[in-house]
Amino acid sequence: MTVRIAVAGASGYAGGELLRLLLAHPDVEIGALTAGGNAGSPLLAHQPHLLPLADRVLTETTVEELKGHDVVFLALPHGHSAELAAQLGDDIVVIDCGADHRLTSEDAWNRWYGGTYAGSWPYGLPELPGQREKLRDARRIAVPGCYPTVSSLALAPALDHIEDEVVVVAVSGTSGAGKAPKAHLLGSEVMGSASAYGVGGAHRHTPEIAQNLSAAAGRKIDVSFTPVLAPMSRGILATCSATLKTTDDVESVYKKAYADEPFVHVLPEGLWPTTNAVLGSNAVQLQVTVDTDLNRLVVVAAVDNLTKGTAGAAVQCMNLALGLPETTGLSTVGVAP
Amino acid sequence: MTVRIAVAGASGYAGGELLRLLLAHPDVEIGALTAGGNAGSPLLAHQPHLLPLADRVLTETTVEELKGHDVVFLALPHGHSAELAAQLGDDIVVIDCGADHRLTSEDAWNRWYGGTYAGSWPYGLPELPGQREKLRDARRIAVPGCYPTVSSLALAPALDHIEDEVVVVAVSGTSGAGKAPKAHLLGSEVMGSASAYGVGGAHRHTPEIAQNLSAAAGRKIDVSFTPVLAPMSRGILATCSATLKTTDDVESVYKKAYADEPFVHVLPEGLWPTTNAVLGSNAVQLQVTVDTDLNRLVVVAAVDNLTKGTAGAAVQCMNLALGLPETTGLSTVGVAP
Amino acid sequence: MTVRIAVAGASGYAGGELLRLLLAHPDVEIGALTAGGNAGSPLLAHQPHLLPLADRVLTETTVEELKGHDVVFLALPHGHSAELAAQLGDDIVVIDCGADHRLTSEDAWNRWYGGTYAGSWPYGLPELPGQREKLRDARRIAVPGCYPTVSSLALAPALDHIEDEVVVVAVSGTSGAGKAPKAHLLGSEVMGSASAYGVGGAHRHTPEIAQNLSAAAGRKIDVSFTPVLAPMSRGILATCSATLKTTDDVESVYKKAYADEPFVHVLPEGLWPTTNAVLGSNAVQLQVTVDTDLNRLVVVAAVDNLTKGTAGAAVQCMNLALGLPETTGLSTVGVAP
Amino acid sequence: MTVRIAVAGASGYAGGELLRLLLAHPDVEIGALTAGGNAGSPLLAHQPHLLPLADRVLTETTVEELKGHDVVFLALPHGHSAELAAQLGDDIVVIDCGADHRLTSEDAWNRWYGGTYAGSWPYGLPELPGQREKLRDARRIAVPGCYPTVSSLALAPALDHIEDEVVVVAVSGTSGAGKAPKAHLLGSEVMGSASAYGVGGAHRHTPEIAQNLSAAAGRKIDVSFTPVLAPMSRGILATCSATLKTTDDVESVYKKAYADEPFVHVLPEGLWPTTNAVLGSNAVQLQVTVDTDLNRLVVVAAVDNLTKGTAGAAVQCMNLALGLPETTGLSTVGVAP
Repeated sequence: MTVRIAVAGASGYAGGELLRLLLAHPDVEIGALTAGGNAGSPLLAHQPHLLPLADRVLTETTVEELKGHDVVFLALPHGHSAELAAQLGDDIVVIDCGADHRLTSEDAWNRWYGGTYAGSWPYGLPELPGQREKLRDARRIAVPGCYPTVSSLALAPALDHIEDEVVVVAVSGTSGAGKAPKAHLLGSEVMGSASAYGVGGAHRHTPEIAQNLSAAAGRKIDVSFTPVLAPMSRGILATCSATLKTTDDVESVYKKAYADEPFVHVLPEGLWPTTNAVLGSNAVQLQVTVDTDLNRLVVVAAVDNLTKGTAGAAVQCMNLALGLPETTGLSTVGVAP
Repeated sequence: MTVRIAVAGASGYAGGELLRLLLAHPDVEIGALTAGGNAGSPLLAHQPHLLPLADRVLTETTVEELKGHDVVFLALPHGHSAELAAQLGDDIVVIDCGADHRLTSEDAWNRWYGGTYAGSWPYGLPELPGQREKLRDARRIAVPGCYPTVSSLALAPALDHIEDEVVVVAVSGTSGAGKAPKAHLLGSEVMGSASAYGVGGAHRHTPEIAQNLSAAAGRKIDVSFTPVLAPMSRGILATCSATLKTTDDVESVYKKAYADEPFVHVLPEGLWPTTNAVLGSNAVQLQVTVDTDLNRLVVVAAVDNLTKGTAGAAVQCMNLALGLPETTGLSTVGVAP
Repeated sequence: MTVRIAVAGASGYAGGELLRLLLAHPDVEIGALTAGGNAGSPLLAHQPHLLPLADRVLTETTVEELKGHDVVFLALPHGHSAELAAQLGDDIVVIDCGADHRLTSEDAWNRWYGGTYAGSWPYGLPELPGQREKLRDARRIAVPGCYPTVSSLALAPALDHIEDEVVVVAVSGTSGAGKAPKAHLLGSEVMGSASAYGVGGAHRHTPEIAQNLSAAAGRKIDVSFTPVLAPMSRGILATCSATLKTTDDVESVYKKAYADEPFVHVLPEGLWPTTNAVLGSNAVQLQVTVDTDLNRLVVVAAVDNLTKGTAGAAVQCMNLALGLPETTGLSTVGVAP
Repeated sequence: MTVRIAVAGASGYAGGELLRLLLAHPDVEIGALTAGGNAGSPLLAHQPHLLPLADRVLTETTVEELKGHDVVFLALPHGHSAELAAQLGDDIVVIDCGADHRLTSEDAWNRWYGGTYAGSWPYGLPELPGQREKLRDARRIAVPGCYPTVSSLALAPALDHIEDEVVVVAVSGTSGAGKAPKAHLLGSEVMGSASAYGVGGAHRHTPEIAQNLSAAAGRKIDVSFTPVLAPMSRGILATCSATLKTTDDVESVYKKAYADEPFVHVLPEGLWPTTNAVLGSNAVQLQVTVDTDLNRLVVVAAVDNLTKGTAGAAVQCMNLALGLPETTGLSTVGVAP
């Protein structure tokens, strides 16, 4: 089986990571590579790490370019996916790395994003209860945001054991902010510096985390979410905590919850996650403890925002949608040190 | 007035930062520079940034070396200060950058540090209610830990307005971990990576934060504290949050609380703290918001762990103890970018 | 004596560093702070480390704004200084941090920069033979480029002892590339990565290095110059080498040459320069050796590109021009680690 | 065909990278993982990125442990390989990532390393003229040093066109210095800082570069080599230059030389190498130009010191020795950004 794929937004970080992974996928043939303003220029000028595609030139992102592939990955700014997807037939698997089809609540969409609400698609986090089944044979898939991926996986197993409010502070590399040049993302600004942003519930991933946790819990979970920018290109380390309402052995709960998951690993006692251990991999590493003075659960989880946080999840979902083994082309081995 | 000072532990990071600041202090003359294993070697081999002291050789840390100065700064591993201090007369101002004399509770000492409890000294965080007066004319001063400094200043003004449990996740540069070579602190390990440690109340700064906040609140405040190591040498960015129990305008409360403080700055609306803005300075920058969905206060604060977090606080305390203007030799201007 | 100064280009990196230094200068009063596109916005939004100037708003860069000061610092893109300077009276000391008045050869200007040649001004590197005198009482001063500063100081003492071709490979932080947002300068791109640019004599600082060395040597010196971008905000480490034509003790030559220079330090044997040892300081650290197999001199020198490489040199020149002690307001103590 | 391999020194950086690559090699089964002081501890405690080996415990490095494998990789400090290798039969392919068997000159060994000279083995840089053939069916292979790999590949094609002296300044990440904790390699020291070391021909890779280039040239080539440590974990960017003695089109010479090499890529005009483009890959990216003012060739080359610079080369050599396709299990796709 050879799957012919296209990537829209191939000059950006999500697009580049998709291609890095897809080049290692045994069943994939790489078709159209499209872009907006960068159309017409060689891919290598934007993705110098993709040597096997050194002869490729970016074309314009249009329906015509994207048609005729088995799978189309959309790695576009939010608000650009719905119209394109509507014009791609239902025979094409469309996997959207953007935010357009993640939120099930139109109110939440209007509040945090705005513009026309495009409705929601099957949500590409198969490790959440009930999601994997919806992704098999899906023809439209919404890839989760990077923070929601790591936060949801960090907290989902505990939901029966915690109170309704969770606090997430997640340290992220800068690639999550994309490749559009902005002064505060310059190397000179971010190196040697940490900064918080989107504080107080202002970050757009807040409602997505709440949606995931509430759905998994079967009750409303409130999320206090603060993202912190750290001087690294990739990686998210999320510290997630909540008051326990049971005295159960939550460590066992986590080990059991993820025992059969190929990409989510509860570390052995004494080891704590580091982002470089998952760099470039589709793995999530997490560790769990209880602050007994406060009866508070603290979970720390690490993920590569571009891999399991975006492009790896997209490939994992493609595998599910096409009936391929879920782990095909994906690795749990990080590039460290 | 010329103050003759000595630094015990001059080859480490706290010692180096003390000397960097003291070289710029108009009233100070630098006397003995002592060390443990590094005694006998040139200071410049350990502190290549201290060119004006290029002719200095480190001597052994002994009472004899330290006697005969007006002020002795101790920048030693914990457990080493009490015995030394006991042998330095009461005419000498002893300022301990270590942990030995910070905790007022012997139980807390025994639980988090162990070894002989040395009792507590006046606590060198003049911005906390009631502390500044105790530091004037003090002859023994305990310099706060870096995390307690930033966390306490971030939360103290809100204590009348919040519930009894606070959550602090603080991203720190690696210099806080000191200069003793350890594999997990190698550049190869920390660059490009974030990691949590001392999770679940295990970090020794937890009881110190709780002590400060409880004293300021006049009631027991519980602290969930998680430190995160980020790839930078200096700086702490603390995200501190708690449930509000009032509907007061907490932003105004903060502005009022710190209006006259020379080193603590509540940023104008729209600006959020970054650690490089305070790098090398004695300033604390903070910003406050309320997550109205959760009625949760979120405060983000930035500090240089080596300056206001250690050595700058020590100099500020020296100024207070000697009756000098509190800001002498200290700056609020960071070295950025 | 109080010197009233203005900074044109106060929102950029050179402007910010000028203000950081001038805030610590005892004889300076800070007047107009002007900008181009950023005029009208608060300085703190661009320079969050300059807390003492938190109440300042940037004004438009015009002759009217800049007039009425004793000293005007120009920190503008190249090509913008000549016209402004022409309209500022000769009573005003104008110190240009840009490239416009550095090159004495119109041909060189036309080849590497282009546009109208503005002529050359006294060159602000007092440590070069014969330059300090020209700077005393100067009313127009061209601040050297950062690479030429470190390269010229690294090689000037050796010129009588080396052949006519020198090779300079200089590793630089990213702040030298300025604050205008460009994709290749994003943190995500530069962190974890080294890259060369302007290779093969293409960098504009090449003719300036050659000009300095040729003038000091009294013969034409050819320069092979390659700048390398490294993942750090500040600092240049230059490795400079040339074939020796004498068997003289060059180490002694260097020590003698810089014995009385307050800012240039030949390190003791066994110590090699690091850029963090000079971070934020006006010091140049260098070390010298001879590769005896090849009879080749190798000099390694470190400088902070924003301080001694730009703004520190500007302040040093201001001191000379005004008859102040040359080191006023400047430090040789770096901010390390 | 399944190749059973062992790694001696599995807790270090070279060992970890070998395992990362070998886990992705379709023909390899991973056998014994041995260590020195770390024997007895779980591999994951030292290599947290190697999740598929989470159940492995390190054993002592002994002949008994290593025997019974098809291929034994030695990733040991220099001086430890010869004795071990002598006790492993000739049926075992022994691939030494250390320096013990690289130098063909006993004099050079004595001068730069010292201790018993162990003789030289086939040299694992197949891209050098005549080397690939010697590696097919070899039973003992010396993996090149990281700096010699990139420097030799950068200069070898030009040797007929340049004078006899080359100048190499190579910027390296810190992982090349290994995992043994040393103060100057702490994150606090290396972040934000560049430094030179082994200057003036003092670095042990100098004779190896000279050996390679002299052998390829058929005449003595003198090498001025300076390594520079930059704040990144991985990657080397080498700037290599030499005076041209011909007016040939050297760009074409390079393109022709590497046209059929799977891992060495001369970039299209206008693109320059960056180390993150080759991170984690076995690729070498290079670009060539001529400084026409000086008639000097300048070549810039990028490599990952741990991959093509060490472990990737070792796997490439294993493939050759076993008659597998040379590129099996190796990628030219870097992990960027």
